[in-house]
Amino acid sequence: MTADNTIFVGGKPFMNYVTGIVMQFTTKNADEVIIKARGKFISRAVDVAEVASKRFLQDQVELLTITIDSEEFENKEGKQVRVSTIEITLGKKS
Amino acid sequence: MTADNTIFVGGKPFMNYVTGIVMQFTTKNADEVIIKARGKFISRAVDVAEVASKRFLQDQVELLTITIDSEEFENKEGKQVRVSTIEITLGKKS
Repeated sequence: MTADNTIFVGGKPFMNYVTGIVMQFTTKNADEVIIKARGKFISRAVDVAEVASKRFLQDQVELLTITIDSEEFENKEGKQVRVSTIEITLGKKS
Repeated sequence: MTADNTIFVGGKPFMNYVTGIVMQFTTKNADEVIIKARGKFISRAVDVAEVASKRFLQDQVELLTITIDSEEFENKEGKQVRVSTIEITLGKKS
């Protein structure tokens, strides 16, 4: 499921994620990179996608798809909780 | 620009936004509702869209489009800053 070209955005320094994406497209020659995040990190994933595609890979990469969804799981107290998820796919411009 | 069927998600109580969307589709009979947010409120806008469409308006409303973008503006110190934006469009199921 978790291919090499998937970046999970969480609490690490912002530029780690941007650099990860830039590396995928440049040194690893990926055609697509999928940015994933859950809950409060969704805003950050959007920032990462915008900065990577518009500042660092301008004219080279474009936004292909954005999907949002929900995941339900049981927390430590045995309560059913819902969390939102996002998947943003960037692709190399042809 | 700001039609009646646009909901801006910010710092108000979460259910205000969900109720606003439900009202648009039910009592105001809207065909589409656009959920907009900027910066850190993007995660919240996704939560609002998910809860409104999957819990309150299940089988009645579907996700039509999601777009993300950046806005540049000058802050109080005269510095150019960038903020991410999201627009999520929900539509009545036909």
